[in-house]
Amino acid sequence: MIQTPYLLFLGDAPDQLAAKVAQGIKDWRPENAVGQYRMAGCGADLGLKDMELAEAKAAGAKTLVIGVANRGGVISKEWKKVLVAALEEGFDLASGLHNLLRDEPDLVAVAEACGRALHDVRVPEVDYPIANGVKRRGKRLLAVGTDCSVGKMYTTLAMDAEMRRRGMKSTFRATGQTGILITGDGVPLDAVVADFMAGSVEWLTPDNDDDHWDIIEGQGSLFHVSYSGVTMALIHGGQPDALVLCHEPTREHMRGLPGYKLPTLEALRDMALGLARVANPDCRVIGISVNTQHMDEDAAKRYLTELEARMGLPATDPFRFGPGKLVDALAAEFLEPA
Amino acid sequence: MIQTPYLLFLGDAPDQLAAKVAQGIKDWRPENAVGQYRMAGCGADLGLKDMELAEAKAAGAKTLVIGVANRGGVISKEWKKVLVAALEEGFDLASGLHNLLRDEPDLVAVAEACGRALHDVRVPEVDYPIANGVKRRGKRLLAVGTDCSVGKMYTTLAMDAEMRRRGMKSTFRATGQTGILITGDGVPLDAVVADFMAGSVEWLTPDNDDDHWDIIEGQGSLFHVSYSGVTMALIHGGQPDALVLCHEPTREHMRGLPGYKLPTLEALRDMALGLARVANPDCRVIGISVNTQHMDEDAAKRYLTELEARMGLPATDPFRFGPGKLVDALAAEFLEPA
Repeated sequence: MIQTPYLLFLGDAPDQLAAKVAQGIKDWRPENAVGQYRMAGCGADLGLKDMELAEAKAAGAKTLVIGVANRGGVISKEWKKVLVAALEEGFDLASGLHNLLRDEPDLVAVAEACGRALHDVRVPEVDYPIANGVKRRGKRLLAVGTDCSVGKMYTTLAMDAEMRRRGMKSTFRATGQTGILITGDGVPLDAVVADFMAGSVEWLTPDNDDDHWDIIEGQGSLFHVSYSGVTMALIHGGQPDALVLCHEPTREHMRGLPGYKLPTLEALRDMALGLARVANPDCRVIGISVNTQHMDEDAAKRYLTELEARMGLPATDPFRFGPGKLVDALAAEFLEPA
Repeated sequence: MIQTPYLLFLGDAPDQLAAKVAQGIKDWRPENAVGQYRMAGCGADLGLKDMELAEAKAAGAKTLVIGVANRGGVISKEWKKVLVAALEEGFDLASGLHNLLRDEPDLVAVAEACGRALHDVRVPEVDYPIANGVKRRGKRLLAVGTDCSVGKMYTTLAMDAEMRRRGMKSTFRATGQTGILITGDGVPLDAVVADFMAGSVEWLTPDNDDDHWDIIEGQGSLFHVSYSGVTMALIHGGQPDALVLCHEPTREHMRGLPGYKLPTLEALRDMALGLARVANPDCRVIGISVNTQHMDEDAAKRYLTELEARMGLPATDPFRFGPGKLVDALAAEFLEPA
């Protein structure tokens, strides 16, 4: 668990895109974003107050989050100066970089001397159990995709935000590094050892109030041969009551797999439901989330209308048109009897 | 390389299934199994001579192999006493447990003092790639089960032996600790990090002669919620041309999961084929392997006959009746055109 709130370190990010992790934190958990720390030449700006370390500390920030990709996979000397100073100032550090904070001897030494924590969110920090399949109280929704990177994280973050806005009990459950940095908690599922994958998802989504929803971030795809095992563990460990199907209609082949066509949404629905009902016989699909970023607005609306008729399910692009339809469907399908 | 022959440590195994590692070694390399070591309350028996450490040493045993699974992964104090005494007696230790011998400071210290080796066969020793899904030359068969521990390893070991006896090109590919202990090679799949599971299976079953078969040991089950992700990675990483369905007809619930019924063989066939054809559209089911150990011979034969009629596939118990039917079916289905 990463201590919040954060000071967001943008370093010398060349542009806004390089700071997309920090942007995600600011967009989805603005209460976690006390300020931003930018170095000379930084080309990103989140519109937060620029703060020195001492100022951010005084404002309550507890962790310096590296919210930017580093160039060439090296933590530079310039970054190091700031990171060391942050530890000395009393900040923990959190990072989703490939090269780990814990592999930097100087950072480890200073953190130890200052009694601060180094969080590498790519690496599991918990000894997860083996899944036991026991039915848990509370409700769970999982996003599954026809492919990787079709908007599963965005969909679940947007649904969770809308549900809380409506006064529903909801918790976004992060299963990847960006989601973990945004919320300060979660399971880095693609780095978990095979036998413990499903157990880590059970651990992430424990017993809860009967009317509470865990909104679980999906990973991979049942149809992506590189990562389908990770998706499988989410479906069986999460024992979802509800699935949202996620799709990007303009993609010509599976991400990183030329020669592999995307499945139809019908194929995804049937395969995911068949597998999900092993763990939860009452699981149902409640709607479809479409990433329409490569379509103009008219084409997007036409596509969604046709899709709703074809599949008999509500369909929306939560980024473009909001997640309301999906939350409406969830609330209607799982309405508590009066 | 693990020194042979072995003394097989059964510990306090609650039942015969828990000792399947030792059973596999005894079945496939009986010349390596000098005797068995059982503790008070042990519910397993391989029919080997029970031996004290000194007796086994005198009989030539060089390595104490931990031939029993421990769910959840704890090496108990009672086990430790025996393992330490074995090192002092001059045995090496070999283990496929999740928790490593090398992580136990007392075992490491005693092994060092006595000049003995600790072999953890479960630990991956290769940096596996991420799966790329590229079609490989040669043919592959994979065993899939309605449950865990229904005879997938036995089936593939028996088929491989029979195929080689007939002069076919075949290699048994171990994906678990028992197979690795038996063959000295393989991928400890359940200990591989999630992102690299399918890639490790691709690595294990590389390009080969067009008429060569990799006979891949299965793991888990698509219907076992604790381990289904591992099975999924085998189906997509192995891109099998042929599947064998494995089943144990008398089991009342999924292993370790009270309340979870076993799927039908039809459900397994449909689910496994649907997923396998993502990676290999030509994949087909060639037969059924039934573990009939809890049925008398007449009942077993009747069951197999009825199953063949019901499924339209050859069915056998390779332990009781030999794997010939399955190899016949494989040879007939994949006959090279004259």
